[in-house]
Parts: sequence; structure tokens; C-alpha cells
Amino acid sequence: MIDLTLIGIGTGNPDHLTLQAIAAMQEADLILIPLKGAEKDDLAGLRRVICGRHAGPSTRIAEFALPRRDSADPDYLGAVERWHDGIAEAWQAEIRRHLPALSGKVALLVWGDPSLYDSSLRITDRLARDLPLRRHVIPGITAIQGLCAAHAIPLNRIGAPVQITTGRRLRDHGWPESADTVVVMLDGQCSFQALPPEGLNIWWGAYIGMNEQILDHGPLTETGPRIIDSRARARAAHGWIMDIYLLRRDPA
Amino acid sequence: MIDLTLIGIGTGNPDHLTLQAIAAMQEADLILIPLKGAEKDDLAGLRRVICGRHAGPSTRIAEFALPRRDSADPDYLGAVERWHDGIAEAWQAEIRRHLPALSGKVALLVWGDPSLYDSSLRITDRLARDLPLRRHVIPGITAIQGLCAAHAIPLNRIGAPVQITTGRRLRDHGWPESADTVVVMLDGQCSFQALPPEGLNIWWGAYIGMNEQILDHGPLTETGPRIIDSRARARAAHGWIMDIYLLRRDPA
Repeated sequence: MIDLTLIGIGTGNPDHLTLQAIAAMQEADLILIPLKGAEKDDLAGLRRVICGRHAGPSTRIAEFALPRRDSADPDYLGAVERWHDGIAEAWQAEIRRHLPALSGKVALLVWGDPSLYDSSLRITDRLARDLPLRRHVIPGITAIQGLCAAHAIPLNRIGAPVQITTGRRLRDHGWPESADTVVVMLDGQCSFQALPPEGLNIWWGAYIGMNEQILDHGPLTETGPRIIDSRARARAAHGWIMDIYLLRRDPA
Repeated sequence: MIDLTLIGIGTGNPDHLTLQAIAAMQEADLILIPLKGAEKDDLAGLRRVICGRHAGPSTRIAEFALPRRDSADPDYLGAVERWHDGIAEAWQAEIRRHLPALSGKVALLVWGDPSLYDSSLRITDRLARDLPLRRHVIPGITAIQGLCAAHAIPLNRIGAPVQITTGRRLRDHGWPESADTVVVMLDGQCSFQALPPEGLNIWWGAYIGMNEQILDHGPLTETGPRIIDSRARARAAHGWIMDIYLLRRDPA
């Protein structure tokens, strides 16, 4: 039996690791580090730092390249499904290579938390068809908590709801009427530009928790253009960017 | 100057603590442990365990009783405001007692994460009026991540939004139309009963992360009554309960 543990490692500060995450790394026979895209060097570097500090003496570390999603495919969900199939094959190849008896403890370090806009759980569904698998999840700090902590703000108004959504949804569907607070993730396009900015405040952050962290906040009318500018400059400087923002609507 | 750090400590598993949280506890001159209500013994006990393991050699630990919210007050938001005023006074009294020079590092251990349905940040707004205060927030694992990890499920469908809301909102406003996934917190009344259960699935958990953790999941039609029953029995057995659930609507 393979015990596969998805470990949430937080958003880029190695000290976001929980004691539970560290214990799982120390017990692991194999830690998988998938490498992908432009953020390859910085993020894989951080995972190497974390493994160097916390992996057990007999833990093997396997780095491997991930397939990329075909972002030109107009069938978004279909492209995601095919991409996940490819990732599952890559994981399975690494597991079979390093644990040919199909027994032992495998850990996968997941940016943020495995539950939030992350494909790892869905990929383990595919793995479970081919491998004798027991799954475990260790929660990690998400970019949402990291953003709120960096700005020292609450996520919600008192007793009020919060919508977590994506840049794509914000562009296609506008403001979700059932909440006055909206957190936007997976947004490569500053999709807040699709909203009438009046009466909205934004709290934005990039590289949350990392040394490179950038923050800005204020009324969207004046803060939006500033964010578009600093996001473009930071992305050019680093070669990649991960950002997130919270929008709050003034009470009606 | 007082450096006040709100430390998210996760949901009841002492190993939810992050390295960042531990470092802040070790550096603290004073750690405040507020005691409240029925969950007093178990939760304060857990915070004592955490302080015993991680507080610094010269850290003082101050336990103090919190005022309670007047839950009979029909003016909900007004009652919350007055309750927060009372809590701020209690914190301030402890800080003045233990750090009369109004200088040093104060830490407050916050259940879950300070951003999510927690009053601590709003209380520090009040404190900052009377004390020379610098505020810091250290993110912690929320019950949402804990719930998803325990069930090994993703929070969101692929690219889809999630609504975080309260039991009260669910009763008063029904299903929030802008999301197919809803996480319900602060619900003492199994408010899912206010919804037509057809086409809904529920993932429920109580005492998430603790030894007492209870989980259940399935179609709401059959799982709802089972949860009402086990919740009542667990609450009677422990004298308190903290629970949370995720509802997912079948695709239209």
C-alpha cells in the first residue's frame, strides 16, 4: 500500500509550515517536487529549501517536469481534464521508479492548501485507479489567510458572507450579488477592470509571504491603475507572478 | 510601543501551529489567553498545552475571563459592538497589569485564523485608540482547510466559486445563487434544514483537528438527519461543540 500525503506548505514563507507538515516530511520515503512553468526556479528553489530543512535522513527527493496545460484550447474544462491526466501519469512514473514495490510513504508538497484551486486531489483520484493508494491531506496556509494577515484585515464583515472566485468568473459574471466581500484568485489579467470601480475597495498582494511580497490597498478607482502598473513591472522583473486580491463593496 | 501579534493557531490540533507562530510565541513577553463560555476547559486546556510547549522562558501567560455577548439582544450588530468594547477593555486591563511601561511584545492566540469570523482584529482597532500599538498577524489553519483535509476533498469545483457564509445567513437568505459550493460556519442550529435538500451533498465535521473529531458526509436528504442527531449527542457529551460544513449543489 502507498500512503500518499498531500502537504499544504503555505504561500512562500518557509515558516508557514506546520508541525504536522514537518512530521509528514520527516516520515516520508519519497517527496515529489513537480517543476512547472516560469515560476520554476523560485518556487522549486523554495521547496528545495524546505526539503533540505525538514526531510528525514532516508527521504528521497524526486524532482520532475510537469506537463503544461494547453491554454489555447477553447474547451477549458476538457483541457484541464487532459492536463490532469498527464500530471497523474508523471506522478505515477516517479512513484513506480522510486518505490517499485508500490509500498511506502509518498509526500507531495502543495503550494498553499490542497483544497483551494489546486489539482492535486483530483490527480490522486486518477492515481487511485492504478495504484494501491491511501490518501491523506495536511492543511496549509492559503494565500487568502496570507493576504489578510499581510494587510491585518478581517476577511469578512461581521456575520457577513465572503465569495471566493476567479478572475475568469469576475470577467464573465461580474460582481456576485450574494456577498459584499469577494476574494479573487487565478487572475492573470487584473480582472477587477471589468467592474465599475465606484464604491469598491481593494486589498492586493503579490508573492504573499515571500521576501518579494508587494502590497497595495485603497479605493479601486485610484488603486486599480497603480496595481496594474506594479503587477506588470514585478512580473517583468521576476519572470512570474502570483497575486490575489480582496474587493469589498461599501454597504448599500 | 507595544507590538501586538495575533497568532492563528489552527483548529484544535496542536500540530497545526506554524513555525512562524512558534517563533512569535517564543519571543513574546506576554501571551493572553482569554477564557470564555462552555468550551472553556477543553479549549483553554489546549492553549495551555501549546504555551507549555512553545512559550519562551521569560514569557508570561495571562489567562482572563472574557465578557459574553448578550445573545438575547435583538440588535445583533449593536450587541456585537458592545461585546467587542468589553473584550477590548479586558485585554487592555491585562496589558496594563503585566506591561505597565506599555512596551513589549504581546501575543494573542486565535482559534483558526485571525481573519475568519474572529473579532480579534476589530478589538485591536479599539485598543489602538488607547495604547501605543503596532499590530501583526500570523496566519493559521482555518476550520475550512481542516474540514476539507479531513474529508480529503477540494473546496472548489474546477475554476468555480465558493461562498463562505453563516448559519444565520443561510436561514434568512437561502442558497446564495452565485455559487454551487457553500461553506457554513457559526451555525448552532443545523441551518441546512432551511434548504430543500434535493440535489445537495454535505460534508460535515465537528471538533476538526482534535481527538474528538467527528465526520459525516453524503446526500443531504439522508445525511442531514444523521448529523442533527450526532451533533446533539456530541454537544451533550462534551458540553460544547464547534462544527462546520460544506454543501455542494449538483450541476444544473
